[in-house]
Amino acid sequence: MVVSKVVVEVPATSANLGPGFDCLGVALTLYNQFEFILQEASASPVEIVVTGEEAKAVSQGSDNLLYRAFTKFYEHLGESPPAVTIKIQLGVPLSRGLGSSATAIVGGLLAANALSGNPLQEWELLQIAIALEGHPDNIVPAFLGGCRLSIPTDKHWEVCQIPWSDDFVPVVAIPNFELSTQEARSVLPSQFSRDVAIFNSSHLGVLLRALETGNSHWLGLGMQDQLHQPYRQQLIPGYPQVEEAALSAGAYGVAISGAGPTLLAITSKGDAMKVAEVMQNAWEKEAVQATVYPLDINATGATFNYPFSEVSRQNL
Amino acid sequence: MVVSKVVVEVPATSANLGPGFDCLGVALTLYNQFEFILQEASASPVEIVVTGEEAKAVSQGSDNLLYRAFTKFYEHLGESPPAVTIKIQLGVPLSRGLGSSATAIVGGLLAANALSGNPLQEWELLQIAIALEGHPDNIVPAFLGGCRLSIPTDKHWEVCQIPWSDDFVPVVAIPNFELSTQEARSVLPSQFSRDVAIFNSSHLGVLLRALETGNSHWLGLGMQDQLHQPYRQQLIPGYPQVEEAALSAGAYGVAISGAGPTLLAITSKGDAMKVAEVMQNAWEKEAVQATVYPLDINATGATFNYPFSEVSRQNL
Repeated sequence: MVVSKVVVEVPATSANLGPGFDCLGVALTLYNQFEFILQEASASPVEIVVTGEEAKAVSQGSDNLLYRAFTKFYEHLGESPPAVTIKIQLGVPLSRGLGSSATAIVGGLLAANALSGNPLQEWELLQIAIALEGHPDNIVPAFLGGCRLSIPTDKHWEVCQIPWSDDFVPVVAIPNFELSTQEARSVLPSQFSRDVAIFNSSHLGVLLRALETGNSHWLGLGMQDQLHQPYRQQLIPGYPQVEEAALSAGAYGVAISGAGPTLLAITSKGDAMKVAEVMQNAWEKEAVQATVYPLDINATGATFNYPFSEVSRQNL
Repeated sequence: MVVSKVVVEVPATSANLGPGFDCLGVALTLYNQFEFILQEASASPVEIVVTGEEAKAVSQGSDNLLYRAFTKFYEHLGESPPAVTIKIQLGVPLSRGLGSSATAIVGGLLAANALSGNPLQEWELLQIAIALEGHPDNIVPAFLGGCRLSIPTDKHWEVCQIPWSDDFVPVVAIPNFELSTQEARSVLPSQFSRDVAIFNSSHLGVLLRALETGNSHWLGLGMQDQLHQPYRQQLIPGYPQVEEAALSAGAYGVAISGAGPTLLAITSKGDAMKVAEVMQNAWEKEAVQATVYPLDINATGATFNYPFSEVSRQNL
């Protein structure tokens, strides 16, 4: 089926989940929506219209990441990209650690595939998307939904779905300043002791058990990390105050979402609103305006007109 | 209840399970049995009688590890140890990577506690045992049974039970040479790249999902490791041949058991005997005699006269 227009909706994601640096992420119920409309060959190669609160911060030129992912698809096939009009409806804050770049990469590739009659399989698109982003932990849940562990092999990335207890509600607190992934990476050491490697492996293990079973003690333990959070906290003014406020209000654990500066708390349904409020207030005391949301887990991932079948996903 | 005699049975364990270096281990159905009989204060402090195939290799003096763990208990309480006769029935091969030292530490502490009227809680004994051994991954399953993940915190070790699918059968192939843990540790680097830390964390995650779900593809992936196995394989003559034979005969994954030289294959029930046989044959071609066993998971851990209640264990 070849179509001349497609609308793709891609969820925000919280990656580097606790000790799951560069491997564990979860899709959340905040969305970017991308509409692609094919144009005559004589039209200008791309026209981009952006709406949403941060619309002005998004490039309308050919360096736009969504468009770059779109053209990457055709480059992969050895073809020239068609002229296209793109309408972007932003719902995911930019450069805040909620996977906005992953939404663009997944959206651009899925739209191009759909507009080309779906010549590539989901699996292949996923590997191209990970290569474009450079790490899998936002891309995979943005694409497939749910909480996902990505495992490197010599050839490609394997993906494993991680059960997430209904008792655990993610709360995000998004401050009004940006932190580039590049800057957040620059503060990290390149070598770690054996003890740090063991610390992170064992904590990832207990985090997975916690997420599946709803054991809140294990969750608090399992959100701890020694690979990136100790280094990045210093880049986030108010971090200790916001974390302390969330834990005092009943959050089971707090972690940096992605490369930050958004903070993710995991809490019970009953405490979610209160935790969101105290995180906002704690940041306000540090002169930082923050938007807070208790969210749900997005289970379906990217959708374009219709969701991918769950059957094919379970094979991933 | 104070008794004058106690018999403790402690299972063998396979630690460093796949990527679970120093944190993941499983109890197996091979046992050491330790009988402690209190003597008059005028008797010699300790008399040790050892039976079993490797009896001659076990010290009968006060440096015997079982006796050292026994005396450590009284040292912890600030008391002098009573005179005691110890009868050891060896069923776990020595210095082969099957946790024989953990059986001695757990056995000595549990026996001393029982002979003293159980003044210490399981939890406290477990922490003393881990401190004596220096790492938790043999001690915890030897003590508690099952597959156990140990997680370091500032104060103590936390423990998380890992579900193990009935579809997965552990097969051990035990060569007739020893490898000391000290030698096996000396070949390991002390620093690792971020990629190695991420590799091991993500592989530990998929291993836990595999063990729970019985997914054999994930199991094969999840048994891989970059923290110790690549370095230790060179200390085990015939390693690549035995691994290849096991995989060819249907094993889902192969790893070094503990610090080696025993190799652990995980396989289906149907393939377990065949896998055991080809591992033995592959080693024989390399002029190494090996004993092979398809085993079960020991679910109860150390028992003395009666098993600890499962209720108290689930709190661990």
